[in-house]
Amino acid sequence: MASINSNFLKLKAGYLFPEIARRVNAFTEANPSDAAKLIRCGIGDVTEPLPEAVRKAMHDGVDEQGNRETFKGYGPEQGYGFLREAIVENQYADLGISADEVFVSDGSKCDSGNILDIFGPGNRIAVTDPVYPVYVDTNVMAGNTGEADANGSYEGLLYLPCTAENGFVADLPSEKVDLIYLCFPNNPTGTVATREQLKAWVDYAKANDSIILFDAAYEAFIQDPEIPHSIFEIEGAKDCCIEFRSFSKNGGFTGVRCAYTVIPKTVTGAAADGSRVPLHQLWGRRHSTKFNGASYPVQKGAAAVFSAEGKAQVAALIEHYMGNAALLREACTTAGLTVFGGENAPYVWVACPEGTDSWGMFDKMLNQAQVVITPGAGFGAAGEGYFRISAFNSREKVEEVCQRIATVFG
Amino acid sequence: MASINSNFLKLKAGYLFPEIARRVNAFTEANPSDAAKLIRCGIGDVTEPLPEAVRKAMHDGVDEQGNRETFKGYGPEQGYGFLREAIVENQYADLGISADEVFVSDGSKCDSGNILDIFGPGNRIAVTDPVYPVYVDTNVMAGNTGEADANGSYEGLLYLPCTAENGFVADLPSEKVDLIYLCFPNNPTGTVATREQLKAWVDYAKANDSIILFDAAYEAFIQDPEIPHSIFEIEGAKDCCIEFRSFSKNGGFTGVRCAYTVIPKTVTGAAADGSRVPLHQLWGRRHSTKFNGASYPVQKGAAAVFSAEGKAQVAALIEHYMGNAALLREACTTAGLTVFGGENAPYVWVACPEGTDSWGMFDKMLNQAQVVITPGAGFGAAGEGYFRISAFNSREKVEEVCQRIATVFG
Repeated sequence: MASINSNFLKLKAGYLFPEIARRVNAFTEANPSDAAKLIRCGIGDVTEPLPEAVRKAMHDGVDEQGNRETFKGYGPEQGYGFLREAIVENQYADLGISADEVFVSDGSKCDSGNILDIFGPGNRIAVTDPVYPVYVDTNVMAGNTGEADANGSYEGLLYLPCTAENGFVADLPSEKVDLIYLCFPNNPTGTVATREQLKAWVDYAKANDSIILFDAAYEAFIQDPEIPHSIFEIEGAKDCCIEFRSFSKNGGFTGVRCAYTVIPKTVTGAAADGSRVPLHQLWGRRHSTKFNGASYPVQKGAAAVFSAEGKAQVAALIEHYMGNAALLREACTTAGLTVFGGENAPYVWVACPEGTDSWGMFDKMLNQAQVVITPGAGFGAAGEGYFRISAFNSREKVEEVCQRIATVFG
Repeated sequence: MASINSNFLKLKAGYLFPEIARRVNAFTEANPSDAAKLIRCGIGDVTEPLPEAVRKAMHDGVDEQGNRETFKGYGPEQGYGFLREAIVENQYADLGISADEVFVSDGSKCDSGNILDIFGPGNRIAVTDPVYPVYVDTNVMAGNTGEADANGSYEGLLYLPCTAENGFVADLPSEKVDLIYLCFPNNPTGTVATREQLKAWVDYAKANDSIILFDAAYEAFIQDPEIPHSIFEIEGAKDCCIEFRSFSKNGGFTGVRCAYTVIPKTVTGAAADGSRVPLHQLWGRRHSTKFNGASYPVQKGAAAVFSAEGKAQVAALIEHYMGNAALLREACTTAGLTVFGGENAPYVWVACPEGTDSWGMFDKMLNQAQVVITPGAGFGAAGEGYFRISAFNSREKVEEVCQRIATVFG
């Protein structure tokens, strides 16, 4: 009798986005004439075209596949050297990371989920609240949690509240934890951590022999020169941190698929026999056994993000989305709402007006403004009282959203 | 203290291909003037250009990413409908498989490894011997085995010998097993299973409530019209089988990355509470949580495999490689060697002459013919006494290999 992984049965049935879809459908069915007015600012997906430099490189990569002399079959599972070297040169210069510490993949969601393969059972795991749901769900699947409560919080995970009081940067836990998921600039709050705050986390991890899984998917949106882009800017991080990076949000690769994970060779974990094992070695084995490399034309495209043209085109994309974020912040502030994030990230995190909870705000924005936002409670119990507006959109639609916010709250 | 997955430490350090590389390097260092003569017939990687229809579709897909109106961000994790529908129409017509039972991915190696995520602990697992190493190594990582013995066989797995006596189709086990990996046409032996043999396996699985993980990555090479291309041609398979398919070997996608897994909604496993759970539902959740869809231009390219031009171009590729296989079979037979496979698969499986073991043959072919083959023992204990020659090569190189075989054994 084949037995299934019963941990899957603990998973809540993706309550957030299906529930959003259900409410949007109900609205458009009840108000068919308003359906065309809907503007979606919910999901964190890019909207602007893939940079020309990237497309050109991908075309070249496809053409190479048409010629016996330049045809590429299986590539190195870890990614082509040309891409890993471009990543180190452009993203980790002076940080002491080498190209063989970079693992290219088809996405950060995959990496941040699959990373649990290399960790043992029994680790005490901390996540922030609100949180990117993949960190939680993959721990549920791996059997690292108990059942969920009514808020969708799982027994066995330590949730670290991120609130206006702590600037949406979790306080250090008072207990010992083994794995810590941190995401800065943060999804969903759009907030960032200072160098001092990150240093405190690295110090905590070193003192407690814990590992920080640092998700830096939004680093390209950082405008403040004082904010670190990489956890490896922090002293000691190369002993205790893994960093996830992506081409999704800077280069607009959400549909093209390319990301990478950086594991310094100096980061180790404890084996059952007490010996220390480099996580780099374990991930290398996992990557080469259960993955077969990212698509070659895609890797060519990713490398072109670091060309002179690519850099200029990506900078223009970032400027566009951050311009959107500034408009959304201003519209919310003018409307008397309290706003967080959106200065170094493409997400604006807005406090609900007194007396309205986050699903109440969702309904109000849908019914009165025909704007789809994401209720904070969908990201965890501490997200209650907030909603997220995504800046990934055309300028025209963002300007329209701003006008509607003025009308609803004016 | 972060603990690692200590099961990884049971893994043999990839003894096969690194050892091949070590011996090849030693040869070229000792015989630098012969290095240029080396012909590699070891690894199962395609060599011929990506079909023109595929490249054209990929170019179109890249161009679409350059236009705001046709830009594609995150796609459906399960794959675009246009590709899933093309797969069903062209590969599963009349087999009762629906498009929502097809999960598109970036590779069969990934799928056949990741599938273990949805199964629980305690399953009794059977693999064939010789075997594609990924099936074994991913079970080791998942904690489904004990330690390896001197042959590289892991405690706790049931190895089913495939020999000349049983035509390299494993006999049914005399005991009850829960998960069974079958691969036809087979890697590494290049042999196939008849309809009756597959029927016996499906009947066994149904009788024992076990699941067959059926790897059909090489189905496009089948020449004999009596040999099933899909396990779902067998009555009852939709109750107990998962099938893995790939664009790697037919369309030449090893560097481009696209594959798919078919899970009928009628296949179930047992939960800890005794309830039956559809594996389709579990894999759907796994796929959408730990994967973000295959690259859009790649999915466009994969769909083009099923266009009229694509079909003709793929047929020409298959004809080329199978022509190579026929030449290699003939050369070996003429040289007095006993040959298996190579009639419905791009691998020729050759018995070593009496008195030579498979690594001995490897050394002989390397030293006397400068041809790199794969020793059968590298695929498992029952592979001892055989070697594999891959037909993935140019015609010119295959003809040269045939001449050298004639010289060495002449």
